[in-house]
Amino acid sequence: MPLTPRQEKISDIVRASGPITGEQIAERLNVTRAALRPDLAVLVMSGLIEARPKVGYYYTGKDAFSLITDQVSLIKVRDIQSVPVVVSCNTSAYDAVVTMFLEDVGTVFAVEPGGILAGVISRKDVLKIAIGGNDLHKMPVKVLMTPMPKIVVTTPDEPVLAAAKKIIDNEVDSLPVVSATSTLGNKVYEVVGRLTKTNVARLFVELGEGKGGNNYS
Amino acid sequence: MPLTPRQEKISDIVRASGPITGEQIAERLNVTRAALRPDLAVLVMSGLIEARPKVGYYYTGKDAFSLITDQVSLIKVRDIQSVPVVVSCNTSAYDAVVTMFLEDVGTVFAVEPGGILAGVISRKDVLKIAIGGNDLHKMPVKVLMTPMPKIVVTTPDEPVLAAAKKIIDNEVDSLPVVSATSTLGNKVYEVVGRLTKTNVARLFVELGEGKGGNNYS
Repeated sequence: MPLTPRQEKISDIVRASGPITGEQIAERLNVTRAALRPDLAVLVMSGLIEARPKVGYYYTGKDAFSLITDQVSLIKVRDIQSVPVVVSCNTSAYDAVVTMFLEDVGTVFAVEPGGILAGVISRKDVLKIAIGGNDLHKMPVKVLMTPMPKIVVTTPDEPVLAAAKKIIDNEVDSLPVVSATSTLGNKVYEVVGRLTKTNVARLFVELGEGKGGNNYS
Repeated sequence: MPLTPRQEKISDIVRASGPITGEQIAERLNVTRAALRPDLAVLVMSGLIEARPKVGYYYTGKDAFSLITDQVSLIKVRDIQSVPVVVSCNTSAYDAVVTMFLEDVGTVFAVEPGGILAGVISRKDVLKIAIGGNDLHKMPVKVLMTPMPKIVVTTPDEPVLAAAKKIIDNEVDSLPVVSATSTLGNKVYEVVGRLTKTNVARLFVELGEGKGGNNYS
């Protein structure tokens, strides 16, 4: 609900000077009290301002952004995740980098047979090894990967917002999207997707362009 | 303005079956027409549905997400940008990587004297050179950087949404934030900041958590 310029003005006045009566607002805007009535009604119904008898209008602090939370919380990781790019734990660091370039991804996941998550390898991990003067051909990824259980993961059902917060808080570029399963009584994670900063930034752009309502709800 | 459950229901009915009269909506919800009046008023004023005399209520297609566009478009690059990390064009690729690790950034900018943007070096650029078996110590960054004028840039005044779209569309991790200036009649860019996918993802999380209204407006 975009506010009209006059509604914006009223909202600003109430925020700055509330509680304030309708008469005082009308005076400031140089209009009649009656002319303001429809705008005040919209602002009160929208929850932006509240009216208290014998006191006047005051600002609630609930601004338009609170809506974003409500809508965005409906979008799940599965709605925006990418396909995972995986290598075996015995792959050399060199071949892992080649895979990164071929698939144009910044992160590959090392998996055990059955697609079970064992580690995460980022460009940063490989670069660190490369400038150390090591031979990437002779080094298996398991030496340089971030191994389980230190990996931060997400699931298809997790809200994107919570997953994006994990990316930011843990300072990683992407999260493996996993499905928990059991092998010989041990809980393990099968890799089913990849959630990256790019996915999140693209969602931001799409929501900002007003595309989100149709695609994700 | 989060809708109440009943307002959501009415909105769904109008979306699915509009144009539809108030009486028909009331019948479906098993309430009186009078009981619906306040909810219908809110929905009409919010722009979600419209009323047409002798036809009924119909859905406008402007859903709650359109609000995000309006609010997010107020946030500028300057509000969320990071400080730029720069090296000189004669720096070796090795020293550029060391700078990346020391500053914990994925991209450094190569500048000429006066902080004038000359190139962008990403982890991917250096990794490509490193696995090619080149000596990073002997290679100046200007050999591997993306040079001007091929660099996509942003400015402090650009809306974040437009800048984020540049990041996605051009498949880059970050943009130099620049200020255009003139040297000997040539238009050049002074580097004043750095806008990354991390900045965008963090903004998304903050907006989603409802923090945006206070920080950015």
